[in-house]
Amino acid sequence: MTSKQETAYQQLKDRLATISDLQSVQSLLFWDQQTYMPKGAVAGRAEQRATLSRLSHEMLVDAETGRLLDASGEPDPSSERGALLRRARRDYERAAKMPADLVARTSRVTALSESAWVRAREESDWTLFAPHLEEILSLKREAAEFLGYEHHPYDALLDAYEPGAKKARLETMFEELKRGIVPLIRAVAEQSAERGRDSEDRAAPLYGRFGEDRQEEFGRAVISAFGYDWGRGRQDRSVHPFCVGPGHGDVRITTRFDPGWLSPALFGTMHEAGHALYTQGVNQDYARTPLDGGTSMGVHESQSRLWENLVGRSRPFWACYYSKLQELFPEALKEVDAEGFYRAINVLEPSEIRVEADEVTYNLHILLRFELEAALIEGSLSIADLPTAWNAKMEEYLGIVPKNDSAGVLQDIHWADGLFGYFPTYTIGNVLSVQLFDAALKAHPGITEQIENGEFSVLLGWLRENVHRHGSRYYPDELIERVTSRPLDPAPYLSYLNNKFGELYELV
Amino acid sequence: MTSKQETAYQQLKDRLATISDLQSVQSLLFWDQQTYMPKGAVAGRAEQRATLSRLSHEMLVDAETGRLLDASGEPDPSSERGALLRRARRDYERAAKMPADLVARTSRVTALSESAWVRAREESDWTLFAPHLEEILSLKREAAEFLGYEHHPYDALLDAYEPGAKKARLETMFEELKRGIVPLIRAVAEQSAERGRDSEDRAAPLYGRFGEDRQEEFGRAVISAFGYDWGRGRQDRSVHPFCVGPGHGDVRITTRFDPGWLSPALFGTMHEAGHALYTQGVNQDYARTPLDGGTSMGVHESQSRLWENLVGRSRPFWACYYSKLQELFPEALKEVDAEGFYRAINVLEPSEIRVEADEVTYNLHILLRFELEAALIEGSLSIADLPTAWNAKMEEYLGIVPKNDSAGVLQDIHWADGLFGYFPTYTIGNVLSVQLFDAALKAHPGITEQIENGEFSVLLGWLRENVHRHGSRYYPDELIERVTSRPLDPAPYLSYLNNKFGELYELV
Repeated sequence: MTSKQETAYQQLKDRLATISDLQSVQSLLFWDQQTYMPKGAVAGRAEQRATLSRLSHEMLVDAETGRLLDASGEPDPSSERGALLRRARRDYERAAKMPADLVARTSRVTALSESAWVRAREESDWTLFAPHLEEILSLKREAAEFLGYEHHPYDALLDAYEPGAKKARLETMFEELKRGIVPLIRAVAEQSAERGRDSEDRAAPLYGRFGEDRQEEFGRAVISAFGYDWGRGRQDRSVHPFCVGPGHGDVRITTRFDPGWLSPALFGTMHEAGHALYTQGVNQDYARTPLDGGTSMGVHESQSRLWENLVGRSRPFWACYYSKLQELFPEALKEVDAEGFYRAINVLEPSEIRVEADEVTYNLHILLRFELEAALIEGSLSIADLPTAWNAKMEEYLGIVPKNDSAGVLQDIHWADGLFGYFPTYTIGNVLSVQLFDAALKAHPGITEQIENGEFSVLLGWLRENVHRHGSRYYPDELIERVTSRPLDPAPYLSYLNNKFGELYELV
Repeated sequence: MTSKQETAYQQLKDRLATISDLQSVQSLLFWDQQTYMPKGAVAGRAEQRATLSRLSHEMLVDAETGRLLDASGEPDPSSERGALLRRARRDYERAAKMPADLVARTSRVTALSESAWVRAREESDWTLFAPHLEEILSLKREAAEFLGYEHHPYDALLDAYEPGAKKARLETMFEELKRGIVPLIRAVAEQSAERGRDSEDRAAPLYGRFGEDRQEEFGRAVISAFGYDWGRGRQDRSVHPFCVGPGHGDVRITTRFDPGWLSPALFGTMHEAGHALYTQGVNQDYARTPLDGGTSMGVHESQSRLWENLVGRSRPFWACYYSKLQELFPEALKEVDAEGFYRAINVLEPSEIRVEADEVTYNLHILLRFELEAALIEGSLSIADLPTAWNAKMEEYLGIVPKNDSAGVLQDIHWADGLFGYFPTYTIGNVLSVQLFDAALKAHPGITEQIENGEFSVLLGWLRENVHRHGSRYYPDELIERVTSRPLDPAPYLSYLNNKFGELYELV
């Protein structure tokens, strides 16, 4: 590296640090809005968020960023410096391809469509939302053209959340998942029908009177044991749980408590803590650079799912933790044993709402969205036909027709927010969570026994070393290959599901 | 106004709105740091704050701001547009006079000196802080030269907090205050000595067991009655209470609770709510302009003091509220009647610490700081001689020699933060609070009776109409003249103090 290149590189890093500050402050504005902000501040907050996103966008796409990138020399992606330059160039080029006017229009249209969606969902009235979605779709198709793609316009959008992901590869993955999951769901349904077992009975232990403070106490104890660092984070309440990093050394989670139902806070806390452990584990030297934070939404979701499902819905975990839970809720859980509780948190049954779906059927909810949004983007499906198409696929994949559009096509906020191409990252996360967990178990077979003892240091240590610390240094495909010596592969995930639910429902 | 001027004016307003957003977001960063931010985020938060202040400073001093100001036409200060242009030009010119390098050095030096001050105060070791203060003083003297002044370098610094204030005029004001206050203090001391009355006995009702939740409940009830708008604000806890506006429609206060002492939360809540009422009352059309927020620190302090002292430490207020307080703390207050409580919250006695001083002696604490900092700035006093000078003035004005430097020259954070010229605004606020309250009473003599009934709408309405809604439209002198038909005048304040404490201590 010449000294001229070094100078340019340092200037580039300063510039990126400023952009990173503006983005992390954005996260604080979001966090505050969801937790403590008074209602009267809504309009002012919207202005602040618009101002910061405009400033950071302007600074990123400024010709000076391009000049410094060029002047910093050819990136060697095997070095940290090279990885930083590669990621910075990617961010710069994606942002620079988007005309400022399109960015501004998208921001205005989604701001309006979000509140239209809220009303439409409340009233289950598709016509209130359809014209907004029409506009958003047209902006997204425009964006895909500006961003460019080789095979399919949907690829251009996917890439925002999952660098390198392609529609064609996802189709293959979903095809394989469908082939494994649909028969499993059918087998469980048949077995349940045969033995007259009711899912409601099975899930009953999760319902009752569960004081919120005690739920919180339990959740805090669990994620403290996972390794969540309270010195660099905190937990608050919000209607929709999330994890956010409003600054270096600051990774916060939020939780929703239901005093009559254990699941949302219990698994929500573990889920968000899984995201937080990833972000807290990134190499400290990456602070205020494009390498800070997770490499993709899919890899992020693999971490939240791993802690929520592979740890939190596992028998070894509850072998240790069930007695503690029972101590906190002696009344509600007095007639439930650990095995009954384990069965309650693992009921497999098709249902209308994605966020309440079990581990298995969840992926069919995603498949449906993936197919529909890709069809919308390519133009083979119209907004007018979307509700019908939704219901048809629900019936085909899950044997259910939603009772109304609120419980159907209007249930998720994603499209109202313009997030086309985001949904598949949920299933990528599910698939990857098992692939990574298997690799961890292979390296350290004692992990299961540790979990039975309420210890998680070996598992966390392995994740830290192999996934977390790298932040965004590697693209998802590189990271997966590096850690598991294979590309993303649904086979381990399917055998995990078949083993777990086959045993639970005595299918063998 | 030509259409060219109109275009420039609109562009200027957009630019100022962006700057205003950056500044209000700064306030949120501050609020979060004082309330909920995890410890591990300190370094990252410092970077975020530095980035935002650099960006807003750069945008303000950019030549484009000057060009737009020039192109917007001659401001007519009698119009809102003119007032906005005048204030914007003032902000621009003050900022543009300061070399970027001096701003950056000041920010670095104060960041270090703040933590040095914390340690020095903890260990009561002046030598730990003196070299830092030496550096700050030299930067402040440099700043005064760049900012320019007619008569005294201190004027240049004062102007930052109190536009138009001058050392010479403040000297006259303090001289008059001293002439009135010193004999009052002496008379009370003599009377107390004569009758053997102990201040400690008098203040006893404020000490005891006061549950924090109930203290909070009482404080919330009081400021709700004052008119604090919870839809556009909130109350949290912090070590040092403050009021901050982290966005339009968002004015938050914080409170410190002491379970063994009523005063901090009780009067702190009213004080911060007084600031908040001012900010909440500004004309909504001034949002994101330089006219939003209070016109000066002194006028701001007049509002906090008015609610804290003229309402909150008055007999009419407690005629209504004492029974409510007693209901909340039946045990601690069972042997105290309303009159005893009124005397407890109005003990006059010289003491070491400014923030714990009574209404009367408080101003001598300020006088001392005013004289010392002006002498430091003009170079007639050296840092080395400061502790001695401090103690000498404490003895002269209050008859007390602080037991150590922590309780003396090291007690306030202001100088460590580079806030030279700030202290006098506290006494300006005290003086003005009475001048305004008298004007309100003259317009609406029924205010006292309203307060006795726990109603504050006429008082608040008058303040809204005459002070709050104008925001920064008028400079302090203009506002005072406009509302009270006179310049700032200590006479009403002195007669308020003499009447109140003369009666309390039976001096007549």
